Amino acid sequence: MSETRTALVISAHAADFVWRAGGAIALHASRGYEVTIVCLSYGERGESAKLWKQDGMTLDRVKAARKAEAENAAAALGVGDIRFFDLGDYPLELDRDAKFRLVDVIREVQPAFMMSHSHYDPYNTDHMYTTQVALECRMIAQAWGHNPGEKVLGAPQLYLFEPHQTEQMGWKPDVFLDISPVWDRKKAAIECMEGQEHLWRYYTNAAENRGNHFRRNSGGMAGGRKATHAEGFQRVFPITVDELT
Amino acid sequence: MSETRTALVISAHAADFVWRAGGAIALHASRGYEVTIVCLSYGERGESAKLWKQDGMTLDRVKAARKAEAENAAAALGVGDIRFFDLGDYPLELDRDAKFRLVDVIREVQPAFMMSHSHYDPYNTDHMYTTQVALECRMIAQAWGHNPGEKVLGAPQLYLFEPHQTEQMGWKPDVFLDISPVWDRKKAAIECMEGQEHLWRYYTNAAENRGNHFRRNSGGMAGGRKATHAEGFQRVFPITVDELT
Amino acid sequence: MSETRTALVISAHAADFVWRAGGAIALHASRGYEVTIVCLSYGERGESAKLWKQDGMTLDRVKAARKAEAENAAAALGVGDIRFFDLGDYPLELDRDAKFRLVDVIREVQPAFMMSHSHYDPYNTDHMYTTQVALECRMIAQAWGHNPGEKVLGAPQLYLFEPHQTEQMGWKPDVFLDISPVWDRKKAAIECMEGQEHLWRYYTNAAENRGNHFRRNSGGMAGGRKATHAEGFQRVFPITVDELT
Amino acid sequence: MSETRTALVISAHAADFVWRAGGAIALHASRGYEVTIVCLSYGERGESAKLWKQDGMTLDRVKAARKAEAENAAAALGVGDIRFFDLGDYPLELDRDAKFRLVDVIREVQPAFMMSHSHYDPYNTDHMYTTQVALECRMIAQAWGHNPGEKVLGAPQLYLFEPHQTEQMGWKPDVFLDISPVWDRKKAAIECMEGQEHLWRYYTNAAENRGNHFRRNSGGMAGGRKATHAEGFQRVFPITVDELT
Amino acid sequence: MSETRTALVISAHAADFVWRAGGAIALHASRGYEVTIVCLSYGERGESAKLWKQDGMTLDRVKAARKAEAENAAAALGVGDIRFFDLGDYPLELDRDAKFRLVDVIREVQPAFMMSHSHYDPYNTDHMYTTQVALECRMIAQAWGHNPGEKVLGAPQLYLFEPHQTEQMGWKPDVFLDISPVWDRKKAAIECMEGQEHLWRYYTNAAENRGNHFRRNSGGMAGGRKATHAEGFQRVFPITVDELT
Amino acid sequence: MSETRTALVISAHAADFVWRAGGAIALHASRGYEVTIVCLSYGERGESAKLWKQDGMTLDRVKAARKAEAENAAAALGVGDIRFFDLGDYPLELDRDAKFRLVDVIREVQPAFMMSHSHYDPYNTDHMYTTQVALECRMIAQAWGHNPGEKVLGAPQLYLFEPHQTEQMGWKPDVFLDISPVWDRKKAAIECMEGQEHLWRYYTNAAENRGNHFRRNSGGMAGGRKATHAEGFQRVFPITVDELT
Repeated sequence: MSETRTALVISAHAADFVWRAGGAIALHASRGYEVTIVCLSYGERGESAKLWKQDGMTLDRVKAARKAEAENAAAALGVGDIRFFDLGDYPLELDRDAKFRLVDVIREVQPAFMMSHSHYDPYNTDHMYTTQVALECRMIAQAWGHNPGEKVLGAPQLYLFEPHQTEQMGWKPDVFLDISPVWDRKKAAIECMEGQEHLWRYYTNAAENRGNHFRRNSGGMAGGRKATHAEGFQRVFPITVDELT
Repeated sequence: MSETRTALVISAHAADFVWRAGGAIALHASRGYEVTIVCLSYGERGESAKLWKQDGMTLDRVKAARKAEAENAAAALGVGDIRFFDLGDYPLELDRDAKFRLVDVIREVQPAFMMSHSHYDPYNTDHMYTTQVALECRMIAQAWGHNPGEKVLGAPQLYLFEPHQTEQMGWKPDVFLDISPVWDRKKAAIECMEGQEHLWRYYTNAAENRGNHFRRNSGGMAGGRKATHAEGFQRVFPITVDELT
Repeated sequence: MSETRTALVISAHAADFVWRAGGAIALHASRGYEVTIVCLSYGERGESAKLWKQDGMTLDRVKAARKAEAENAAAALGVGDIRFFDLGDYPLELDRDAKFRLVDVIREVQPAFMMSHSHYDPYNTDHMYTTQVALECRMIAQAWGHNPGEKVLGAPQLYLFEPHQTEQMGWKPDVFLDISPVWDRKKAAIECMEGQEHLWRYYTNAAENRGNHFRRNSGGMAGGRKATHAEGFQRVFPITVDELT
Repeated sequence: MSETRTALVISAHAADFVWRAGGAIALHASRGYEVTIVCLSYGERGESAKLWKQDGMTLDRVKAARKAEAENAAAALGVGDIRFFDLGDYPLELDRDAKFRLVDVIREVQPAFMMSHSHYDPYNTDHMYTTQVALECRMIAQAWGHNPGEKVLGAPQLYLFEPHQTEQMGWKPDVFLDISPVWDRKKAAIECMEGQEHLWRYYTNAAENRGNHFRRNSGGMAGGRKATHAEGFQRVFPITVDELT
Repeated sequence: MSETRTALVISAHAADFVWRAGGAIALHASRGYEVTIVCLSYGERGESAKLWKQDGMTLDRVKAARKAEAENAAAALGVGDIRFFDLGDYPLELDRDAKFRLVDVIREVQPAFMMSHSHYDPYNTDHMYTTQVALECRMIAQAWGHNPGEKVLGAPQLYLFEPHQTEQMGWKPDVFLDISPVWDRKKAAIECMEGQEHLWRYYTNAAENRGNHFRRNSGGMAGGRKATHAEGFQRVFPITVDELT
Repeated sequence: MSETRTALVISAHAADFVWRAGGAIALHASRGYEVTIVCLSYGERGESAKLWKQDGMTLDRVKAARKAEAENAAAALGVGDIRFFDLGDYPLELDRDAKFRLVDVIREVQPAFMMSHSHYDPYNTDHMYTTQVALECRMIAQAWGHNPGEKVLGAPQLYLFEPHQTEQMGWKPDVFLDISPVWDRKKAAIECMEGQEHLWRYYTNAAENRGNHFRRNSGGMAGGRKATHAEGFQRVFPITVDELT
């Protein structure tokens, strides 16, 4: 086990990681983290409207297109390790084997932190289901009796990334991350999502406004740092520190 | 303005800071922080039952005893700057002048972080009132039009320290601080509170159990750090970071 | 697709729609809506105590009796389209096929609005499970890749109708509907529920008291409308308007 | 009393109504509503940093500048009736006389709906205090024994307009209003706020993203309306209707 | 100090105790409790619409009428000790002296339990203010330094009685009290409130439906007790027991 | 059916009942209750780290060791009726047959009250799943149509016992039980858990501090009872009473 720090992003559908955590991914990748992205599905049924409006579209072609977009986006973010579980969407369901497959990845990666969706999402039950599964698999990965002999998981934080329509999801960010240094990478990744062009401007606006929140919470008019773009995250677990800041 | 980092603890009654934040105070003092403690009242009416049970007790004698205890406790924690506003308790009330006096301290100290009570406390309305006032005065201290020319406040975090009966207060810690290195100091400070000996064991137990929470959240069986004592805090504001941990 | 407006009520057990949404159903039916009611089960095991106390009762006889009552109630409300999924109750469970069957109905109906149970119900887990399924199936019905070529669903509101013991369920109505013009129909439908006569008075009282809430919120002593009976609903989703009222 | 419909916006500081409700104000004004705006203070101490950074600035000059900006913004929104209570800010405080003055305005206006700030705001206690006062004064305006003989208030809705950093305030919009037809007016009003130019882009982004939420909740890919800009509001009280939508 | 058990009801306006706690009052009075009722105001401005609609009405005449009604209602409930603080309403305000007057009553009564309004009430800020004051005065009554030498208060429960429109207030009952034996007394007390006849039926319905909740929670179809009328209450504090039930 | 009162504790893993409810179990057993404990799993995979660290450990040996410990602990608490469902852990899953097996036990025991875990636990999804199943099975046990002819369940309370890190779970105790008379038994039971010795001190501290809460809530300095140890519980359902206390 090298000293390289690692992170694991669990995305319900192929594109979720881009809008919601692209900046965090690019930033940590640029700092030497090995980031692994797991897409549980391609979002092929529920998040590919533009493709389905084309004549003669098939499920396999949609999956292939979505996969290519996600791989391109990951590359734009500086990540090579993206894995597709191809479990289907709308609804997404994981049986025990699929969960253990995810546990295997968690143990392999031994992430310093994990990321997934908000706790609640009445618009998209796949999202909240994914978070529930992420917590369950984190627990299993910590069990000394699961595949005894493997290295068990410690207690990595689970960050909930920003959902669409945050207030409807009861999501409250308690951490703002300055992504100004990698905004161009996130922008490039966003533009890989050709099927969802209607969201490009939306998440650009969101990143700028989170930059405002970063400035406000780092001191505002009296010393706030000039971040231009940021992302917000909600922690599930308390943190442990040696000093308050 | 030197490079010394500073912190400000706002305590409704003279002893509150000891039980609830004594470890954080001693730890940051030991690291070179200049910590200022403001006691809005002595807790002379409501938190001095043992003294009042003595024959011939007077309000002035209670105040003097409480003041001495608090000064001793502060000294035990390594803090020399403790200020008594003597505003009365049960109920504690701050008029505009008293609030501006607190604003003056906030601006003078320019704290890296502030501390006060939980948002809610049906047992002790002085506690929740203090937090409300702390937020109001933090806001005033940020106003460029309040005593123009003074250095305005940035955006320091407000940490809510642990109340008695945490669950009844809706208080949820999101930060655990390892106070093992200074536990002996907190213990010494606790033992300065001669009038409330029934609480010594209580807060010793609490610190040990928060140590358990620290170990659990820093990795548990698979790498958790061996903190023996800890304190928990709830942040009011989101934080701004350059990297997730 | 005609211009007729439609509505869809998803009821865990055969009688739920009567007590909780009978007024809304009758009112919209009287205004020309085509209302479809889906009963996922008959409530044959858990909500038919009176029948089971009879000698020689069988599951089939209970189901038949419950079905007849529900059909009569629907007719009394002016609704002909009531569908029984017969999925069993206590506990109610939907597999993927059953969910897709519900999706088919949603797409067929293309409802202007949907109705179901409260989010939470510790007394009756079938109720909260039904709402969870309703949200999941609403999402699937919106997926362009589910049965491509079918008309996908827009974004109909999901109204949560009034549970028993509202405060225990965390249910909070944000809409009161005046059902005075159709109270006689709801009363007739209630009286079709011969097996649950102990609830007739209860829901009559409830409708009268909701009428009071209607009057109070439409202006009270200073202009409130004289509704005699009302029903309350909680919206899951925000609404979109051209003007505030 | 004519048939003209009216609305009342209660703003803690002079500029709040622009960022948070400028679209709703312009839209209803354009539809013939008589909109009245009450600014309880000018925000002269706490929200005028740019002015205070100028040499030789005085409180009176700040107030005059803020007043002019607010009047210009109101005019840009099509509103002539803007009233300044000049009660001071940071902290804002209303004594009984000031509350009764606000009650007088409420009764004079007899608003079809009212608007004010979010319930909670730890960054800005003036904001949450204003909403508390708005509720208290709404109640007094309903009292038949307050200035007997005057027309008492009915039960107008209180809309809570969008705060900065919505998630930190626990604010959840349940109504989205399409402000596309008047976006140019809101933009013009925003640009009247010369002292807070750092917020222009922020609220432009916010209006665009709320437009996305409008489209999503009015039907999304399957029929959503092409609103370009929107505003969100949270209702305090349930509504009363004759039909569900 | 005799062995008689005592209770204290704190009512914002003269009639509140009747609708919300009349059954509890009559029941405990009938069991030998000495119940004291404090009406902080007569509700003369805000809850006497019917009186104010009469020609030539004056504040003094309204107060006298409200006082007579409340005394009659108390007598009907079997209570002789009703005290009127006459502090004014809409808004109700207590200065320090008024609070200490309430503390005096609390200490004099030494209640086994206290009762007051719900924590939250956006329709009626007097109600929530009263509960806030009740908690503050309970705390002061517990202070050994307040009027040293007086018997200090123990830790009586504070029951929050049922508000109008419970769900809007976030009020959740955790105790149902069977008031069947004294329903006739509550009914008689209700009918003393001649100025609010529009509420008689409402609270009769409510009492019947709470009876249903009592039956349901005491065993339902399988052993529930046949209570005909009940009242619900929410406890503020945890209870201490020797055995679970 | 004898007059003996009964209680049922549903424990996700073999040791949970000891830490969380050992005092309540011993106390009620000592008062003649017949207490039944169901362990849904042994906690063999996820809560047996110490055992798994031994060379050559197998799943069967872990189960056997955990079973022996749990039986010893139950005996120490005075309980002979402990049942092991052996359903597996991390994750725990109950199919319909397993649920019906639990329903059978509930009906057989006819508990005066039930106990299980907190509603929420992001660290341990087995715990919250168990509570969800407990509610579902309680509902099924109440159904007259489930195994007609059997005695159906009434409406026993479900007590949620204390989780680890209470504040993270949103658990709020509303009942404190004095376990001083049986503390020695709980201590003995705790010490049967040889594999989790790191928790002995933790739960001793917790019991002492809950004793403090008991004293505070039973009267504090002015009459509180001198309980040395206590346990806290959260009720799911409201209670029904004849008198308030």
